Amino acid sequence: MAANTMHASSFTTNKMNNVLGRSSRRGAPSSSSCLSVRSSRNNKVKKSSTMIKAAMIEEEVALDEAPLTLLRPGGEGDANEMRAKFEKMVRQAQNDICKAVEELDGGKFHEDAWERPGGGGGISRVLQGGKVFEKAGINVSVVYGQMPPEAYRAATGGQGAGTETIPFFAAGISSVMHPINPMAPTVHFNYRYFETDSPRDDPGAPRAWWFGGGTDLTPSYIFHEDVAHFHGTLKGACDKHDPEYYPRFKQWADDYFMIKHRGERRGVGGVFFDDMNDRPKEELLAFATDMAQAVVPAYIPLVDKHKDDSFTQEEKEWQQMRRGRYVEFNLVYDRGTTFGLKTGGRIESILMSLPLTARWQYDMHPKEGSREADALDAFMNPRTWLA
Amino acid sequence: MAANTMHASSFTTNKMNNVLGRSSRRGAPSSSSCLSVRSSRNNKVKKSSTMIKAAMIEEEVALDEAPLTLLRPGGEGDANEMRAKFEKMVRQAQNDICKAVEELDGGKFHEDAWERPGGGGGISRVLQGGKVFEKAGINVSVVYGQMPPEAYRAATGGQGAGTETIPFFAAGISSVMHPINPMAPTVHFNYRYFETDSPRDDPGAPRAWWFGGGTDLTPSYIFHEDVAHFHGTLKGACDKHDPEYYPRFKQWADDYFMIKHRGERRGVGGVFFDDMNDRPKEELLAFATDMAQAVVPAYIPLVDKHKDDSFTQEEKEWQQMRRGRYVEFNLVYDRGTTFGLKTGGRIESILMSLPLTARWQYDMHPKEGSREADALDAFMNPRTWLA
Repeated sequence: MAANTMHASSFTTNKMNNVLGRSSRRGAPSSSSCLSVRSSRNNKVKKSSTMIKAAMIEEEVALDEAPLTLLRPGGEGDANEMRAKFEKMVRQAQNDICKAVEELDGGKFHEDAWERPGGGGGISRVLQGGKVFEKAGINVSVVYGQMPPEAYRAATGGQGAGTETIPFFAAGISSVMHPINPMAPTVHFNYRYFETDSPRDDPGAPRAWWFGGGTDLTPSYIFHEDVAHFHGTLKGACDKHDPEYYPRFKQWADDYFMIKHRGERRGVGGVFFDDMNDRPKEELLAFATDMAQAVVPAYIPLVDKHKDDSFTQEEKEWQQMRRGRYVEFNLVYDRGTTFGLKTGGRIESILMSLPLTARWQYDMHPKEGSREADALDAFMNPRTWLA
Repeated sequence: MAANTMHASSFTTNKMNNVLGRSSRRGAPSSSSCLSVRSSRNNKVKKSSTMIKAAMIEEEVALDEAPLTLLRPGGEGDANEMRAKFEKMVRQAQNDICKAVEELDGGKFHEDAWERPGGGGGISRVLQGGKVFEKAGINVSVVYGQMPPEAYRAATGGQGAGTETIPFFAAGISSVMHPINPMAPTVHFNYRYFETDSPRDDPGAPRAWWFGGGTDLTPSYIFHEDVAHFHGTLKGACDKHDPEYYPRFKQWADDYFMIKHRGERRGVGGVFFDDMNDRPKEELLAFATDMAQAVVPAYIPLVDKHKDDSFTQEEKEWQQMRRGRYVEFNLVYDRGTTFGLKTGGRIESILMSLPLTARWQYDMHPKEGSREADALDAFMNPRTWLA
């Protein structure tokens, strides 16, 4: 909070937003779920008297167990629809990956399920304080929301839509897993499917839809062969569908996972893609399915290899500082996190990605030639991991 | 990173910003200072080959010692000007408050000074790993920058300014101090003076100027008499200038220090004000001076009282989770921090406010009737601390 920026910004965000007619953060909706107080006895949610309703996403209601489907009843549950196929795929992936993590860790995931009155909901699974993992979370969620017409026009290349908001559907899986050992890397992955309805006041206009996702690795220390195995496994899944996917999506990940104010990435990347709708839905579903199934073979062996490595206090502190960088990326830049915080998604699921513990040490710079300096160089200057 | 929000947001920030002609964060300038690598031997700064220049704030150059003034040479150094008077005030406050903290802690502040080629600079003082304080930082800085004409028009009620950016000046002091003991509270304060030139293409238009600032307390556990002492000391400094200041600025702090996605404040507030220009500059300087001088009597006794309190592991973890909330507020909402990260201020000074360590525990809710629940209630429902 340097005084210079503190001031200039209070000027810019406060007054400029008014001038430009933007809503200032001060007026942004708060999550309601964050105010719920859950008794340790059961899963019922009691609400605070100071509840602030979320403006864009309905308040969720806790369920005692995960429902068969998070889709709305009726037509949208049609097994032939991509909505149903994608939910089935991500829930299978959640089961498979949780199973592999539990086998490695020995601990068990805790599950929280919820739904929203207007349809949709989610299933969060968290393993905290395990033998191998400090914190591992895997979310599945389905959202029925509303988007501004400008956003719809952007999605459809400027066609259609009047002044009304456009209903949209989104389903996805998202996960971050932080191991305890500083020699074992953190992983993140997220795969999602999105579609809009036709505008109510322009029923002839097309529906928009697309797929997006990615898987990326965040080590504290670089073991070249480990990163090569991770990238190689992702490349193998990509190559089954298009040899141009891996190089393109590897670059996209190097661009996306940038902590701009540090000039360094949070890790060594992987693949990232968005807005994919240039092939039949079935082909893109198959691609997303293969990418989700590649998470276990790409990642689990790296943690298994390093989970019992010896390490020093200094190495643990370096890991903790890199965890701090992870927090900086997720709270400042990550699209899903920043959007979720503004729109009132289930806060504990959105911030499940944050590490159990993190550290900010003033003006710490690795010694030249150290393993920490090598890692920082890899975060600042993306490497080619595959020959 | 719940999949739902991950998706919807990738849509919103990516495509909508293009539609609305906003620049997306992806294109935001990065700090250059964050890429400097400082050898442990001296204070010289070596630059990385991948340097990205900051767009809005010049790259700083490290100095071996703090200069007599951070102002540009010549007229702007005039001792009769508010620019010079305000710099003198904040540097005196930095000296006085550092002295009081060193007496309490027994440790010494480390000083980093820097300047920018076009004028301005700063002095950061940090005490890390002390006997009493985990991390305490006090910054003084002076900035010569450029603002968009819309911002100038907003500041001057829509008068003047053509299409060119307007030069501005800002000087201030900013500080956050995190004690080790979970019974001892964290404090933040920031006092600043801002003024613009007349637009180059509208020399007759008025200069804009104002004062802003605040002091707020963030305890992990509530000791009513301590919070009352803190607020009472700030009220005493306010009342010397206007009996309406304290109630107005207490409310402003309760509004400003809100973690919207949690529906809770980061602490128990204090005072916050901005855009003050409704009195002669000398009166507002005297007010800012009294507020800065109130920090030591308002805060230091609370830390002195609790620095040796006994505490449990659970109490330390609760403090660490509240530190996590502090990180969430500063990275997501704090105007100075969010602006500074976008514009390339000295990153280590901007993020000096972050705690040495923090914790995010999934879905943790204090037991009803516990001291933690009482603190959370105070953060969610602001209290009247003074009879």
